[in-house]
Amino acid sequence: MQSINIGLLGFGTIGTGVVRLIQKNAKIIEQRLGCKVNLVKIADLDIVRDRGVSLADGMLTTDANEVVSHPDIHVVVELIGGYEPARSFVLKAIQNGKHVVTANKALLAVHGQEILQAAEKHRVEVLFEAAVGGGIPIISAIKENLCGNNFHSVFGIFNGTCNYILTRMTEDGEDFSSVLKEAQAKGYAEADPTFDVEGIDTAHKLALLISLCFGTRVDFSKVYTEGISQLSLVDIEFAKQMGYKIKLLAIGKEEGGQIEARVHPTMIPDDYPLAQVDGVLNAVRLVGDFVGPVTLQGAGAGMDATASAVMGDVMSLGRNILQGVKTRSPVMGYCPASIQDLPIKSMDDIVGPYYLRFAVMDRPGVLAQIAGILGAHDISIASMIQPDRQEGLSVPVVLVTHDAREVNIKNALKEIDALEVIREKSHLIRIEGRLD
Amino acid sequence: MQSINIGLLGFGTIGTGVVRLIQKNAKIIEQRLGCKVNLVKIADLDIVRDRGVSLADGMLTTDANEVVSHPDIHVVVELIGGYEPARSFVLKAIQNGKHVVTANKALLAVHGQEILQAAEKHRVEVLFEAAVGGGIPIISAIKENLCGNNFHSVFGIFNGTCNYILTRMTEDGEDFSSVLKEAQAKGYAEADPTFDVEGIDTAHKLALLISLCFGTRVDFSKVYTEGISQLSLVDIEFAKQMGYKIKLLAIGKEEGGQIEARVHPTMIPDDYPLAQVDGVLNAVRLVGDFVGPVTLQGAGAGMDATASAVMGDVMSLGRNILQGVKTRSPVMGYCPASIQDLPIKSMDDIVGPYYLRFAVMDRPGVLAQIAGILGAHDISIASMIQPDRQEGLSVPVVLVTHDAREVNIKNALKEIDALEVIREKSHLIRIEGRLD
Repeated sequence: MQSINIGLLGFGTIGTGVVRLIQKNAKIIEQRLGCKVNLVKIADLDIVRDRGVSLADGMLTTDANEVVSHPDIHVVVELIGGYEPARSFVLKAIQNGKHVVTANKALLAVHGQEILQAAEKHRVEVLFEAAVGGGIPIISAIKENLCGNNFHSVFGIFNGTCNYILTRMTEDGEDFSSVLKEAQAKGYAEADPTFDVEGIDTAHKLALLISLCFGTRVDFSKVYTEGISQLSLVDIEFAKQMGYKIKLLAIGKEEGGQIEARVHPTMIPDDYPLAQVDGVLNAVRLVGDFVGPVTLQGAGAGMDATASAVMGDVMSLGRNILQGVKTRSPVMGYCPASIQDLPIKSMDDIVGPYYLRFAVMDRPGVLAQIAGILGAHDISIASMIQPDRQEGLSVPVVLVTHDAREVNIKNALKEIDALEVIREKSHLIRIEGRLD
Repeated sequence: MQSINIGLLGFGTIGTGVVRLIQKNAKIIEQRLGCKVNLVKIADLDIVRDRGVSLADGMLTTDANEVVSHPDIHVVVELIGGYEPARSFVLKAIQNGKHVVTANKALLAVHGQEILQAAEKHRVEVLFEAAVGGGIPIISAIKENLCGNNFHSVFGIFNGTCNYILTRMTEDGEDFSSVLKEAQAKGYAEADPTFDVEGIDTAHKLALLISLCFGTRVDFSKVYTEGISQLSLVDIEFAKQMGYKIKLLAIGKEEGGQIEARVHPTMIPDDYPLAQVDGVLNAVRLVGDFVGPVTLQGAGAGMDATASAVMGDVMSLGRNILQGVKTRSPVMGYCPASIQDLPIKSMDDIVGPYYLRFAVMDRPGVLAQIAGILGAHDISIASMIQPDRQEGLSVPVVLVTHDAREVNIKNALKEIDALEVIREKSHLIRIEGRLD
């Protein structure tokens, strides 16, 4: 019987997970697929470190070309991460007629077009379930089973590091930098946490989901991206008092041919489904015109969960290969000719309620001044908290607005921040309560 | 360009939803699939009732043979429901080389083997995403993306009618029969609610998921099935006091080659993920050895959500047909030769904590008698509530046990119920807190 032969580029954490899965679950893979998945070659710069798995002699190489050009390999699994050399190797594999499975959201979010066109030209598939939500089968769900729907929105919690930090800040009242240090010690955050905590990783994933859901190319530089590193404990506390949780949400919507694509700390009502997604968990919520809202939740990262997603893709390609099929589903879920360039809405045009926090000199008339400026910018106030009155000192004033346009909020804050009674730059957090 | 031609058997609620989806989302279906999905023929006994959709002349027929034998039809969508005539028509369609998409869990749970063998013989696929969890893409997830995992367990809330009734009983303190009447008035429950409220529908779905997850044939008659019609408000209230919610759970597990397959009202801690799944929502939780726990949640029924699942299956088959592929994935997720007959564990051997409620004459020494009998059967008590002391009258005594074997619980209850101080048959509810 034929086997499906794969080669790995990158033998780090996820690569090791994939090898473990192939070895441990060989029997069930064969029972479900009808043939073996056979590991042929692994390329990595480090071929001496012990990863706790035993491999046949000659399996390891430092030369990625031995993988992307190997005549027996059907599927190249790219687990190097980052832009280069991953991009070059993926393109080379495609040119050699290999199918590609990758967990690399950064590569696809930024160089997706080039890879997509190469795949189309050489009639191979590129699958990337592991790139978003770890083991959660979100990409398959969008491309395959929910593909009869027009999607309204796709949003969720896509970064376990940020969610872990926010959960600890919320539950234990510790500030960002101390929780980050702890997360680094536990291995939940990288030594350089920028991609995670500044929202870039989340934005990469959002760009992919928006392309898949709405059939549009996404210029990654236009995805609004704001991380959690500037988030104060005091805002988390005020949010709690008002019945909200703060999560780093990725939000994608389509309305009237315009796309919303934004990543930022977001206040959501604490009885909202995503508010209960804590710790390193990820969750994605999709709203389709027929299926309604669907939520998928699970481990968003980690060696094993990511290996599960990679193997799902390998087996899917395996089923095609066994039937002599080169390409069965378009890479981004839409036939290439149907993919559009829908405009991304400016953040100025986002409409919703806002949480605003001002540090003011506590003296009579201050609130009237602030309310006056907000009113002049067409912003009305839904609720207000001014917790610690200490006449003559700087105290916080917290307001929640009714629906307002972001440009109006920005202009009003500029005016307010110029007031003599304002002691520091004012803070805003966007509120979402009606994402469905 | 080719089109994928489908015929419908049954033009009720779901059939109407499928027609609406094909018409409303024709453009996006073509953009994603690369060709049109073309509705050729619909068979139903009633071809005069207005379903609010417009159809080409000659589309409707009362003769199902015109669908199952139509030379242009690639995929027959069976939406009649029930065992017969659905079974005969599905077999006929398969014999005619048609692929089948069905939402009929009853048919598959009871006649699955016959249909599976026919499909194998005639080299067609039978897809049934709509049979479990409405629009939730659970079956695709098991068969496709998570197929590299050995699953430990699959469980969840699969019946919206029961979940709606339990939610209303829990939140509003109304009893079963009055909420059932209201649910019937709202269209959430059938005129004859037996299949739903007695857990049979849930058990049908569980049987399918167990087959898919564990690669075993399931003798449906061996799935333990207990519904919610005997559930008292008083037990819901006691559960609440103790930090639990009562849900109708379907529970499937595999351990050491033995299967647990059971449907019954279950007490779960109210911070457990499934405890927040309220109203008509469904949720499925899967635990795989690599992916860990994954939860999928959404609308478990309804015209639109079910139509979404049907169309996903149609488009999946469409992708095969466009590539000239007859069968790509085995119907039950495993190659037929690998499917086993794993034994289903007797309920006697289930181990877990139990909630027990006794109606006792309130007089000194009663609790000692009950505790003595429990102890003699190797059952130890974790907590106790005896809320309303009214000496000389019948009062409830509620106990939660530590882990106990069900056979011991049953034997102990038999002895206890024979005591002179016991005023009615004692009640038990199984508690689950460690399903992951």
